[in-house]
Amino acid sequence: VSKTGQPLALCVDLGGTKTLSAAVTRDGQVLARDLCPTPASAGVDSVMRAAVDSLRRVFIQAGLAARDAGAIGLAMPGISDPEKGIVYSSPNLPDWHNVPVAAVFREAFDCPAYVINDANAAALGEMYYGAARGITDFVYITVSTGIGGGVVIGGELYTGVTGLAGELGHMTILDDGPDCPCGNKGCWEMLASGTALGREARRRISDGEPSAILDIVGGDIERVTAREVHRAYRQGDRLAAELVKRAAYYLGVGLTNIVNIFNPEMVVVGGGLLKLGEVLLGPAREMVSARAYPEAARAARIVTAGLGGDSGLLGAAAYALDQKQRPKSSRG
Amino acid sequence: VSKTGQPLALCVDLGGTKTLSAAVTRDGQVLARDLCPTPASAGVDSVMRAAVDSLRRVFIQAGLAARDAGAIGLAMPGISDPEKGIVYSSPNLPDWHNVPVAAVFREAFDCPAYVINDANAAALGEMYYGAARGITDFVYITVSTGIGGGVVIGGELYTGVTGLAGELGHMTILDDGPDCPCGNKGCWEMLASGTALGREARRRISDGEPSAILDIVGGDIERVTAREVHRAYRQGDRLAAELVKRAAYYLGVGLTNIVNIFNPEMVVVGGGLLKLGEVLLGPAREMVSARAYPEAARAARIVTAGLGGDSGLLGAAAYALDQKQRPKSSRG
Repeated sequence: VSKTGQPLALCVDLGGTKTLSAAVTRDGQVLARDLCPTPASAGVDSVMRAAVDSLRRVFIQAGLAARDAGAIGLAMPGISDPEKGIVYSSPNLPDWHNVPVAAVFREAFDCPAYVINDANAAALGEMYYGAARGITDFVYITVSTGIGGGVVIGGELYTGVTGLAGELGHMTILDDGPDCPCGNKGCWEMLASGTALGREARRRISDGEPSAILDIVGGDIERVTAREVHRAYRQGDRLAAELVKRAAYYLGVGLTNIVNIFNPEMVVVGGGLLKLGEVLLGPAREMVSARAYPEAARAARIVTAGLGGDSGLLGAAAYALDQKQRPKSSRG
Repeated sequence: VSKTGQPLALCVDLGGTKTLSAAVTRDGQVLARDLCPTPASAGVDSVMRAAVDSLRRVFIQAGLAARDAGAIGLAMPGISDPEKGIVYSSPNLPDWHNVPVAAVFREAFDCPAYVINDANAAALGEMYYGAARGITDFVYITVSTGIGGGVVIGGELYTGVTGLAGELGHMTILDDGPDCPCGNKGCWEMLASGTALGREARRRISDGEPSAILDIVGGDIERVTAREVHRAYRQGDRLAAELVKRAAYYLGVGLTNIVNIFNPEMVVVGGGLLKLGEVLLGPAREMVSARAYPEAARAARIVTAGLGGDSGLLGAAAYALDQKQRPKSSRG
């Protein structure tokens, strides 16, 4: 428990490029935090060591002892088994196969540790502390490198029969569109993610379209990502504006599907690409109004995440405390 | 109650072309049934009168008195409000707007009456008496004139915040595909429904492709529907085979989305087009195996409806008995 007597969790949100760690109270207060790069290319062991070290710094910073933390929550990308605490595979961590993440943290800190999919963690974070407080039926979407989803029904995460529900980024929205590494075709994340935005920018610049984007990267087209498109957009670049419009269009196509499929009270949209803000979400929201069932479109508030980049981190903390409380949990 | 002491429901499954009525016990036994055409073009009053008359014939046939029935269940196409018992609108009954269906039956039979969307009713029918007995997380799909869906999560229908969840036929799977009357683009039902199969057949025959389909309709291309394509298919017609292959392909695209979105234990596929059987479902199932997340694909059994055309009818009966039992129901 924290010094205020509140249950305390440690948490890690391990992403493909950066690792966030924190000590968080049950009411969502962050007592200490750490941010470090994820050494993804250095392999599994390095990534795990960096994450454990990051969490140790949090400990020290907060003046905590190991016994102060009730549980460790681990938001992980990719396909994992929460019951076993294993990450099976992860698109942004290519050499990860059957990594016993929960066991590593449990042993390092002598504390129960729980693994949860990062988008599911973010959905919980938004439900407990963010934009979806008091909402029992909503869908969380993260739009960044890929597109991930977390579905909350009746105030609980819906994870499906094997924990994979909510893979909304791998819903086909354009069947004659690009092949996706997942094996499917025309997936939403191939058209509306940050990666898709960067890829389309590189393609159109390669085709010879003039753009300030190329100046930003000093002529090195391989360095073009969503970030440079965003910067060029703010400078008034015409190609960047077209690219953002296209991303907003496909974001709207997927959101329309979500509204027709789930008829949710709210759709919370987070992730790095949302730094573009209303430029992206405004047109997408208009498309939902124009194309979804009118009654469903009216019922669904489409909002940006309330916790910004912390949704997954805070959600992992809440999840860990929830899991620890469960009477018959065989986890940890 | 029935003579065996079991609670008894009357039920109607009102479709765009035919109206089914029955008296059904709690355990799914049909004591009497009636089938009549739906006089859709004659207007709302005629349709309602025909349905009430159909249910009266069931009464007489079964030797029942009005007081024997505990509740009336009404499976209705389109958008309805189960709380108010009103059908707001219905794609196959174009002049229907805010029709107080439950009130009409309640007054005609002096018995509580409950309205439920037809695909949702069919999902319940399959859960109680059909292919999904004992399954708590599954998706029901009906493929006929359109494509409808019913989602069961934790043993209960998931209907969303305004009762519209599960409009799976209006999920975009081919964004540059045909406009849908619903206002969306490239909807699943524009590509994989019976109507889509007939439309595509007419288009390709108009384009001059030779086919036995044209002989079956005596050269009158306007009479070509999915039924004639099916008949030509059984005769070994090449165009019919291509058309069925295309329908199976798009059926598979939508089923892949459902498997990635819901990670269900089972997908039950019913509706008129399933008369094509494994010819349609086999290739669709193979596509799910090839394109969905492997873990999710392996977990999802994709099966045909166990009750054939009776899923909605029996589900409406069960729904009505369930609703009547609910302690604080203000319905009926």
